[in-house]
Amino acid sequence: MKKNAFYAQSGGVTSVINATAAAVIQEAKKFPNQINKVYAGQNGILGALRENLIDTSKESKKLIESLYYRPGGVFGSCRYKLKSFEENAKEYKRLIEVFKAHDIGFFFYNGGNDSADTAYKVSQISKNLGYDITCIAIPKTVDNDLAVTDTCPGFGSVAKYVAISTQEASLDVQSMMESSTKVFILEVMGRHAGWIAGSSSLAKQNNSDAPHIILLPEITFNQTAFLKKVKETVTKLGYCVVVASEGIKNNKNKFLAEADTKDAFGHAQLGGVAPFLANLISQKLKLKNHWAVADYLQRSARHISSKVDLEHAEAVGRYAVRYAVKGMNGVMPVIKRKKTSKYSWEIVPAKLSKIANIEKKLPKSFITKDGFGITKKGIDYFSPLIQGEGPIDYKNGIPKLEKPNLILAKKKLPNWK
Amino acid sequence: MKKNAFYAQSGGVTSVINATAAAVIQEAKKFPNQINKVYAGQNGILGALRENLIDTSKESKKLIESLYYRPGGVFGSCRYKLKSFEENAKEYKRLIEVFKAHDIGFFFYNGGNDSADTAYKVSQISKNLGYDITCIAIPKTVDNDLAVTDTCPGFGSVAKYVAISTQEASLDVQSMMESSTKVFILEVMGRHAGWIAGSSSLAKQNNSDAPHIILLPEITFNQTAFLKKVKETVTKLGYCVVVASEGIKNNKNKFLAEADTKDAFGHAQLGGVAPFLANLISQKLKLKNHWAVADYLQRSARHISSKVDLEHAEAVGRYAVRYAVKGMNGVMPVIKRKKTSKYSWEIVPAKLSKIANIEKKLPKSFITKDGFGITKKGIDYFSPLIQGEGPIDYKNGIPKLEKPNLILAKKKLPNWK
Repeated sequence: MKKNAFYAQSGGVTSVINATAAAVIQEAKKFPNQINKVYAGQNGILGALRENLIDTSKESKKLIESLYYRPGGVFGSCRYKLKSFEENAKEYKRLIEVFKAHDIGFFFYNGGNDSADTAYKVSQISKNLGYDITCIAIPKTVDNDLAVTDTCPGFGSVAKYVAISTQEASLDVQSMMESSTKVFILEVMGRHAGWIAGSSSLAKQNNSDAPHIILLPEITFNQTAFLKKVKETVTKLGYCVVVASEGIKNNKNKFLAEADTKDAFGHAQLGGVAPFLANLISQKLKLKNHWAVADYLQRSARHISSKVDLEHAEAVGRYAVRYAVKGMNGVMPVIKRKKTSKYSWEIVPAKLSKIANIEKKLPKSFITKDGFGITKKGIDYFSPLIQGEGPIDYKNGIPKLEKPNLILAKKKLPNWK
Repeated sequence: MKKNAFYAQSGGVTSVINATAAAVIQEAKKFPNQINKVYAGQNGILGALRENLIDTSKESKKLIESLYYRPGGVFGSCRYKLKSFEENAKEYKRLIEVFKAHDIGFFFYNGGNDSADTAYKVSQISKNLGYDITCIAIPKTVDNDLAVTDTCPGFGSVAKYVAISTQEASLDVQSMMESSTKVFILEVMGRHAGWIAGSSSLAKQNNSDAPHIILLPEITFNQTAFLKKVKETVTKLGYCVVVASEGIKNNKNKFLAEADTKDAFGHAQLGGVAPFLANLISQKLKLKNHWAVADYLQRSARHISSKVDLEHAEAVGRYAVRYAVKGMNGVMPVIKRKKTSKYSWEIVPAKLSKIANIEKKLPKSFITKDGFGITKKGIDYFSPLIQGEGPIDYKNGIPKLEKPNLILAKKKLPNWK
């Protein structure tokens, strides 16, 4: 029996998440006997709770195709985690009500750990609430911290951006080191896991190349060892490039930036790991330095997305639909790296119970003994993920954007809250 | 009579300055009866003073060609301004000594205002010091603040980077605004002039698009008006994107970041305009925000260089050589915008006396009445400069780099200092 589908984006967006959206919408059209319309949640799961359902059938074919080129989340995402059914049954009941009212038989939730958890819960309880729905979680996160899957769509592109930015900035610093800047610090995302910071190691073509120091959340920050390594590197090479994860902590388990803020200032937002480290280097080593904070630039940089990452993002969207129409409930299409000498991969289903709420850190075997670098094993993992450049369409010197219609389906229920 | 040439890079580097170097070296080969070798200063003018002359004839043709793709300054640059002849005649005498010892008859100085000044001085005094040399300054600066020339090589690429980054990050913020970040601040370079910040206006395809507020050094920062505009924008659109020049000052003529540092903390390096503004917005408006500081990433981002800018960078190098062999002393090849409906340009010579030490600010006619935006006239100026994408050669997912030999000419003089 033909049903509608609901697709929502969740949490921080990526430069390729819209490719997944496009793939879901395009693939659903291939199953006209099972899937009728695809509704997208306006601002993620909030769109379902508020019954704000974007009717994607009202978008042009051209717009859907253009999503492969568009960073950010075109339908809006949100930071909203559903509580457990025991804590807030109301929310789950509302979801089912909305799904029922709009004849939605497929629920695609595109996000990280939390979203896998939500999709898992809905897959388990929907029957008890009197409405059966097929729930598929689709992986997405620049943090690359999902269990089971080899990598997460969105990550490869950030890795490519960070590796290229590190290479480029290091060539700049090398030019200036004789009479000006000697240390450059790039702060990247990664609150709990060092995947992004670690990927900067791909900037190295030779052993002496940048980055010279990578600071990972997996390793407790040791100020003495850090300053010693900076000094040694500047003495040896004339300059030093540091890539720091925003999530590095001191031996009191405090985020560096926070720690500094609390010690001296009381201005929580003035923090940032990069300015903290810059200050440290200025004060303790008297070395001229510069720092950059990539922040959203890194995860929205579609202009330099990885082709492999884009292909992953598309594939998980397509397989999500294929699994759904087969009635595979409570699964996620994940990326499996094949055991071939040349990089190859396939999409396989994984149970959400094995993914929900688990955070995958950078393995110890990827981190060099001194804690400041990435091993050959790590490089071998990262390298295939940044290969190729996602195609891009320019107009007037900047990426071309199509304007979506974003037309909402007519509401059938009372307002939520 | 055949002479050698000396080429040096000066001040902050750009993503296309090596294209100028390559053009000088390649063009010089076309005049074998006038130019013998091209020596490049190791770390700019310091290379001349120290007699560290890189023999570019020892570099492969492939390496020279690869310079079109390589950001930073391949021979090294420096922040070193020669004093006036009256203040430090010793330096000028040393320069002439080195030029004489290595039979250098052409001096190409690739930089900004300071370098134009130095080249101008050398062009005037060399004869009096007993050695005639043809001096050509070649424009380069991401700050775009050189007089006479329509634009400066290096600027168009930063403008493109900033416009694209602003567009991409704004799509990210738009996705998140419902439940998370509402204000995003991007800090860009520009200590004294707002060309770079202004160029972010190219991200706009529609009136409501980001950037919503541009903070320029030409306009005194007005906290009340700024916060009002942020609030209004968030109320109207749900989010607000601010692009801030590092050089904005308050009504006491203090840099914002500095002012803050001095008022409360005493940590000069913890500053940065973006975190200052972020803190202000958090405290006064209680709006969740994110900030990025592009720093060196913006001026080294060869992966997204403007094709037009790259063409400018090449052309000024070629014309510098052509002017030199014609014996045109004390000039700079500058970019002249032709009065055509479609953008076109040519290279013309300009006297260094009209360029040296003059700083060109953003014209008032480019700035909107409220001081927070760029007018149509400004857009019409900026837009042609970011057209096209400079070609780039990838290997293993990152830009391919050739390794230069950097072989120094044999020294003939006693050490300097």
